[in-house]
Amino acid sequence: MKKYALIVAGGSGTRMGSPIAKQYLPIGAKPVLMHTLQRFHEFDAEMDLILVIPGSDTDYWKSLCKEYDFHIPHQLVAGGQTRFQSVKNGLNAIQSLDGLVAIHDGVRPFVHLEVIHQSFQTASITGSAIAVVELKDSIRKVEENGSSTFQNRSAYRLVQTPQTFQLAKIKQAFETEESPAFTDDATVYEHQGWQVSLIPGNLENIKLTTQDDLRFATFILGEKTS
Amino acid sequence: MKKYALIVAGGSGTRMGSPIAKQYLPIGAKPVLMHTLQRFHEFDAEMDLILVIPGSDTDYWKSLCKEYDFHIPHQLVAGGQTRFQSVKNGLNAIQSLDGLVAIHDGVRPFVHLEVIHQSFQTASITGSAIAVVELKDSIRKVEENGSSTFQNRSAYRLVQTPQTFQLAKIKQAFETEESPAFTDDATVYEHQGWQVSLIPGNLENIKLTTQDDLRFATFILGEKTS
Repeated sequence: MKKYALIVAGGSGTRMGSPIAKQYLPIGAKPVLMHTLQRFHEFDAEMDLILVIPGSDTDYWKSLCKEYDFHIPHQLVAGGQTRFQSVKNGLNAIQSLDGLVAIHDGVRPFVHLEVIHQSFQTASITGSAIAVVELKDSIRKVEENGSSTFQNRSAYRLVQTPQTFQLAKIKQAFETEESPAFTDDATVYEHQGWQVSLIPGNLENIKLTTQDDLRFATFILGEKTS
Repeated sequence: MKKYALIVAGGSGTRMGSPIAKQYLPIGAKPVLMHTLQRFHEFDAEMDLILVIPGSDTDYWKSLCKEYDFHIPHQLVAGGQTRFQSVKNGLNAIQSLDGLVAIHDGVRPFVHLEVIHQSFQTASITGSAIAVVELKDSIRKVEENGSSTFQNRSAYRLVQTPQTFQLAKIKQAFETEESPAFTDDATVYEHQGWQVSLIPGNLENIKLTTQDDLRFATFILGEKTS
């Protein structure tokens, strides 16, 4: 089945305390987004890569690609006001209803190839595959009155990406009206009344959102190449 | 109020894939446990430090202290079969019923001094203070039939240590019979029908349980000293 990867990086990067959005900041030898695109390209050089960034960043991104001599083929799509709109724009850029699409955060460059493989495998059978990891710490639930209760942590999973889907189904799901309840693509899919399948992600597959994360990312890359 | 810290390191370290228990492995210039003890000593050189390790490791620990020229005063207590027993042994080594005790995982060397401060402050007023952090990722709850449902992540907190308590109360709480429901000290305290207070921990305050964690720890220390 034809495979697509939708790399979503609509964020403005304000959480990083840097005027440059975090997806463009270099870790190791090149910007975060190039690592992420490269990861999917390594998994399958034949797959179509679609990169969603703010439309106003197009020229900047192209100049970065020149600067870093980055030649992995990918289609650029302008993002929307929200993550939902950005993903929808990306899905609209895919004409086919056949095949599978892995929707992945641009700022998660450390996804394992095995996780990508498993996500396409599972989605081809069940319709969807959401990468999740178990909790390393205990967890409590906080009530509105401030009190908190212990939870059985083995019943919980932290959600990552890729979130991979059969194209026809996820395109249909994104035809719905946007809701604040949609915090990721899995919740949009579920809104149709469909169950999602969970697959094991990898702990290293963190979302780079703080300056600490970026420093750690640089460290991980240094280890891999040394 | 008199302050105590109970540093609990009863673990055998089998999850690290190393014959040496993880709390004794060096990060940066010295073993993990020495960093942790030092952190509390830095917070307040007057406080009593109690270190709980397996009784069979006593000679090894003393030889490590010689090897690393480690002179921060601390009392050694032999751990028990379970974490509950280890903490109970540690509490029994404190004669006084007055004062506060911070119970802390030996393999969390990166707790901020501000968190320790806040935990004693809050526990002195309310009886307890449990360090927790917000979730960075979305969270799902898995049912026994394998299905999963999205949860509002803002209602959840990941639990760390220190878990700090008024001595009389936590000693009383540990008089109860051990139960598998006791996954940390907060749950033992709650078993008395008392509510725990939550305070903000720090994200860096991770529990070093895997080889990746140790590499991350070495990275953090390298940054701090460079």
